[in-house]
Amino acid sequence: MDSRGLRSDLAAIVGPGGLVGPEEATDRYERGYRYGKGRALAIVRPGTTAEVADIVRYCFRNDVRLISQGANTGLVAASTPDAAGDQLVVSLERLRGVEAIDANNRSALALAGTRLSELNRETARHDLSLPIDLGADPSVGGMIATNTGGSRLLRYGDVQRNLLGLEAVLADAEGTVLTDLKGLRKDNSGIDLKQLFVGTGGSFGIITRAQVELHRLPRQSAAALIVPSSHADIPELLTILEAQAGEFLSAFEGMSANAMRAALAHNPRLRNPFAPDDPPQYVVLVELSSALATERVNLAEHLTQILGHLMETGHPAVVDARFGPPEQLWAIRHSISDGLKAGAKVIGFDICVARSRLPQLRTRLLELLAADYPFLRVCDFGHCGDGGDHFNLAWPDEAARQYDTEMVTAVRERVYDTVVNQFGGSFSAEHGVGPYNLDYYRRYTPRSERHVASRLKDICDPKRLLGAIDFS
Amino acid sequence: MDSRGLRSDLAAIVGPGGLVGPEEATDRYERGYRYGKGRALAIVRPGTTAEVADIVRYCFRNDVRLISQGANTGLVAASTPDAAGDQLVVSLERLRGVEAIDANNRSALALAGTRLSELNRETARHDLSLPIDLGADPSVGGMIATNTGGSRLLRYGDVQRNLLGLEAVLADAEGTVLTDLKGLRKDNSGIDLKQLFVGTGGSFGIITRAQVELHRLPRQSAAALIVPSSHADIPELLTILEAQAGEFLSAFEGMSANAMRAALAHNPRLRNPFAPDDPPQYVVLVELSSALATERVNLAEHLTQILGHLMETGHPAVVDARFGPPEQLWAIRHSISDGLKAGAKVIGFDICVARSRLPQLRTRLLELLAADYPFLRVCDFGHCGDGGDHFNLAWPDEAARQYDTEMVTAVRERVYDTVVNQFGGSFSAEHGVGPYNLDYYRRYTPRSERHVASRLKDICDPKRLLGAIDFS
Repeated sequence: MDSRGLRSDLAAIVGPGGLVGPEEATDRYERGYRYGKGRALAIVRPGTTAEVADIVRYCFRNDVRLISQGANTGLVAASTPDAAGDQLVVSLERLRGVEAIDANNRSALALAGTRLSELNRETARHDLSLPIDLGADPSVGGMIATNTGGSRLLRYGDVQRNLLGLEAVLADAEGTVLTDLKGLRKDNSGIDLKQLFVGTGGSFGIITRAQVELHRLPRQSAAALIVPSSHADIPELLTILEAQAGEFLSAFEGMSANAMRAALAHNPRLRNPFAPDDPPQYVVLVELSSALATERVNLAEHLTQILGHLMETGHPAVVDARFGPPEQLWAIRHSISDGLKAGAKVIGFDICVARSRLPQLRTRLLELLAADYPFLRVCDFGHCGDGGDHFNLAWPDEAARQYDTEMVTAVRERVYDTVVNQFGGSFSAEHGVGPYNLDYYRRYTPRSERHVASRLKDICDPKRLLGAIDFS
Repeated sequence: MDSRGLRSDLAAIVGPGGLVGPEEATDRYERGYRYGKGRALAIVRPGTTAEVADIVRYCFRNDVRLISQGANTGLVAASTPDAAGDQLVVSLERLRGVEAIDANNRSALALAGTRLSELNRETARHDLSLPIDLGADPSVGGMIATNTGGSRLLRYGDVQRNLLGLEAVLADAEGTVLTDLKGLRKDNSGIDLKQLFVGTGGSFGIITRAQVELHRLPRQSAAALIVPSSHADIPELLTILEAQAGEFLSAFEGMSANAMRAALAHNPRLRNPFAPDDPPQYVVLVELSSALATERVNLAEHLTQILGHLMETGHPAVVDARFGPPEQLWAIRHSISDGLKAGAKVIGFDICVARSRLPQLRTRLLELLAADYPFLRVCDFGHCGDGGDHFNLAWPDEAARQYDTEMVTAVRERVYDTVVNQFGGSFSAEHGVGPYNLDYYRRYTPRSERHVASRLKDICDPKRLLGAIDFS
């Protein structure tokens, strides 16, 4: 299909403003947030669900490959075109806005291209939010397609858990629109088809709208950095806090000394809470938060008492603790990724195991790396409270060995084999699957599951035109 | 296929003890918990997943219809054979037991036939439970197949929200076993195939094992019956309590005067908390609970203060309140279903709307019934906190009109049309879909969704042998 014909056909669907003109910058549509750069056949920005369906039908008739894109903040290249230059990018940035907030129902209806920050600005007027706490500012549709988790999953769950309904367009001949926007908390009156689009990277349909559950904004929070006697004490520390801080526990994040050091070195506004000492080997950032006013419950006091008692009694789970304004402690946590990138080439991981098994896994991985890749610096941090770990490795410029992509692949395979085969874990906890990690999907997913996934794809996209990968 | 041949073939798979003999009572396998009675071709009780797969393959080869059955406590006849007598009942009662509890991970691995009560007996030793609070004692597999909700959904969510993984056998030629039992809190490394089996009534596969998330057992709770000035105040009452009782709110259940009266009349051990007065028009049972000890937070005081303040300031959401031991107040709530059945023929409902819309819905339904069916007594009660309502109607024996099943159908249709078409609600919030309400599934589900559902069924059960319904 010639490019001029395609452009005029698409313009007939979306109007001239809906097409990114040849003179406009296309980089942001073609370049991934952290990785990857491709080339789009064209970029179209539909303004309504009906236009999305028209585009899909057009692509189906003319065998045009297409890929949907929200804020393009994903980390597995699932929303950027590949290098072939034959994928139409369907950007949802004009499908944007919060259409309704039902405060008593604690729910919001938003168009798929709405940014999380925009949604939460609107819902904050009602003292509510979608409390998925992430480094990026993704679109609502992208969050669903990735099933994002974040730092407060322990308390509020992932996107799947907060998704009340959605509208999506299948890549079939009819451009079938599936709609479930009733905003119900429970509905078992049929098949829950929205699950086809959760965490499937935009390969099963184009999400156009969603109903999400909102939660009350906290009125207070308290945080501390806790130093356990060893990493092995972390699961028990978590169990103790779940018992003693109960419903208030809202984050339980781990940071290794290397990860903290990278953050502190990178961001001059940060203060090392352990100064003049170096950060300890491993620290847990604990946060309590509540919708209750401090007159009823004082979380800062509560946390101080719990940790004080554990230290007084010599419990190994807490040998030291530092209190501070939550935003200051979070600033350290949130500076880690950038800090690591600034100082070295990073081999990033997004793994997950049963949270009870994190210490054994870490011990095993440290042994493996010390033995075979001693020049790599382990800078791990992550969501210990739900078994997640960004077991990131830094390959310093000054390392004895020069950076080598083949060796990176070998390291990845060693780590993933350990996580998946020896510890029953996941190689992609919250980033989803895309071209960036598709090989690992194939490596670890049984043939029977890939067969079912492929049959699901037949239903939603029989010509295999949509999305970055096909899960087969 | 002759019955003797079938029995000996099955005995070869499961051993003689795995087959219900001709001399054994079959009633409990053939009769539904509340409704329906059918006839089984035979009843087989596999003891392992491999035996389930063998049975499925055998049925596939020989075109034998089959239906899986857990505790058979469902309310839509999805686990009982129909009257044709050609369905093999695959009872999972020998696939029973808690295989592992990981206390630090707050998770349990159980065989599908394990009863909820058995599971919770084991987990209680670790101060944990699967806090799905129901009238019945279902099997774990049946809970997944129905996606049960219950009285504490507001706090803990439904089964879907607490399901970490499962193992299921498809009804295809191979008897494909899909296994995801890693017990991870987040895993976006592929398609979430377990969702195919959640709330699909056993029509997409036979669930054999599950990993569920557990929650800390409460160490204290407090409850009250709240009388709002009118039913219309209920959404605001809920919003106020979510703000002021925050993370502690664990139930918010509505009871009409007629529902309470039925419970009190039926169960002589109950005490009317409003005596000597009659129960008020509509009452909300509110429960706070916490894993925290009373030294930290005293929920009884907390609730008394919140409600006291609302009453003192003349807030219409609370004109009166009665406090009492939670178990006494719950006893009233839990006696309603039996109380209603004892006094009249009951037209039961399990509807749901956005919780903000419950009052308008109720007003509309009361008008409709008063106008056209004045002899029916509205005895509604339900899970107001999540928009659920058992809008049950009693047809008293002494009514002016005689009970008439055609009229019952007409009433159902009027109510469901109002709920679904006018209020965007669900005709089956937590009971699922089965032969009992299949007509309504067809009535309210768009053709496009039924088409996708039917294609999903092609994947899991291409010969349409499994389960009570096929969702097409």
